[in-house]
Amino acid sequence: MPTYRLDLAYDGGSFYGYAIQKDHRTVQGELERALRPHTAGATTQVAGRTDRGVHATSQVVSFTSRELDTTYVLHSLNSQLGPEIAVRSLIEVDDDFHARFSATGRAYRYRVLNAQVHDPLRATTTWHVREPLDISAMNTAADYLVGEHDFAAFCRRYRERSTVRRVDWARWHADGDELHLSIGANAFCHQLVRSVVALTVDVGRQVVDVGDVPTILESQDREIARGVAPAHGLTLVAVSYGDEDLPRPAWAEPGNT
Amino acid sequence: MPTYRLDLAYDGGSFYGYAIQKDHRTVQGELERALRPHTAGATTQVAGRTDRGVHATSQVVSFTSRELDTTYVLHSLNSQLGPEIAVRSLIEVDDDFHARFSATGRAYRYRVLNAQVHDPLRATTTWHVREPLDISAMNTAADYLVGEHDFAAFCRRYRERSTVRRVDWARWHADGDELHLSIGANAFCHQLVRSVVALTVDVGRQVVDVGDVPTILESQDREIARGVAPAHGLTLVAVSYGDEDLPRPAWAEPGNT
Repeated sequence: MPTYRLDLAYDGGSFYGYAIQKDHRTVQGELERALRPHTAGATTQVAGRTDRGVHATSQVVSFTSRELDTTYVLHSLNSQLGPEIAVRSLIEVDDDFHARFSATGRAYRYRVLNAQVHDPLRATTTWHVREPLDISAMNTAADYLVGEHDFAAFCRRYRERSTVRRVDWARWHADGDELHLSIGANAFCHQLVRSVVALTVDVGRQVVDVGDVPTILESQDREIARGVAPAHGLTLVAVSYGDEDLPRPAWAEPGNT
Repeated sequence: MPTYRLDLAYDGGSFYGYAIQKDHRTVQGELERALRPHTAGATTQVAGRTDRGVHATSQVVSFTSRELDTTYVLHSLNSQLGPEIAVRSLIEVDDDFHARFSATGRAYRYRVLNAQVHDPLRATTTWHVREPLDISAMNTAADYLVGEHDFAAFCRRYRERSTVRRVDWARWHADGDELHLSIGANAFCHQLVRSVVALTVDVGRQVVDVGDVPTILESQDREIARGVAPAHGLTLVAVSYGDEDLPRPAWAEPGNT
């Protein structure tokens, strides 16, 4: 049977996370339900299982199915799935393509609204932090995390899986009254990005000393760095396959600040 | 009693419009309820009564009340009003200040998402239009509307009020996959901006000929131009008082396209 790749975006605030659950509305649950009449019940794989509240602009899903008219099914999915999920494309791919295991990189963005007063129109997409933030210290902290490390201190542990990951870049950037973190890695263990956000923001508001960041990383102790930033500021923005480079904002290139 | 000015932002999608209604959640209703313990029941005036679904980043409200500790009341309002309304400032003003009658200008922005596929994260702030849009024709259409005109063809009529307004600028601008209309006027009659959006977008998708726009304006006939764009793409972005200039984006300055 042919293999298909589906790229989608969703508003995480409308779902109990990506992964299917029995009594809750999830992205996977809605997607598989909409696929069912076309595929006779395909199960899907996903590049990044996002938590409840986390958004995606470019999530990637794969599945095998009987032959599909992709243009027709794409329209059908979008008309069934309504405003909170958008299927951006549906294409046939090589049989060895697997959304999760073939992925070679993932990139996330995190948005902080750094202002005295909250903003109703950004309440579901930014984390509101009132205190002034020292972005230069935040970037020094982020720099310590780049490279291959055991991120056990930043990961919620599942069974005995490895928590070694290669972070390709992690950089904060001011955009008007917001601060954005762009972070790319080969893969992310559970809660890694939100833990990095919590720690670097704590550095930015001078609750944590930037010099303690390497110690926290090396401790591999979840109890030491256990803050987790709110899910709704986080968005999965890209997944790469094979030799593809992840898209990286110009301000996150090395040497920029 | 002193007079106060309150600047606020809100997510219009959470309310049945600005103006107070008996059995519906409205911005004015929530605001006056939160003010009540401080002011012993002030009634408020507003610069622009926005319709259900319309957002605001800079709405202006005035009221008279016994003397207030403005810092304290500002914090109290924000803690009562929750994420959908943000009170940006609260100051004492001259006794002759009236949010509506003292206002000399209002500016709105309208966002169109012009893409094949909708975007879940912009579903509540943009109007999704799939067809390609000719922005140059849209701006030619918008140019016809600048100046003092009787906008009867574009206004939902209330009683026998005048529909003569002075539009200072009206300009569309492409920003990534969005088109934004910036429009400023001394005041807007009901549904004026959304009617202008509907007409200029119809010009952009070649449903209406740009040469018909002056005829429609001069007809002063609501039946001829009765399209109204969806409320959720619209945001009140500024109100000016006295000699203040309305903030106008550089791309909406004369001579830019």
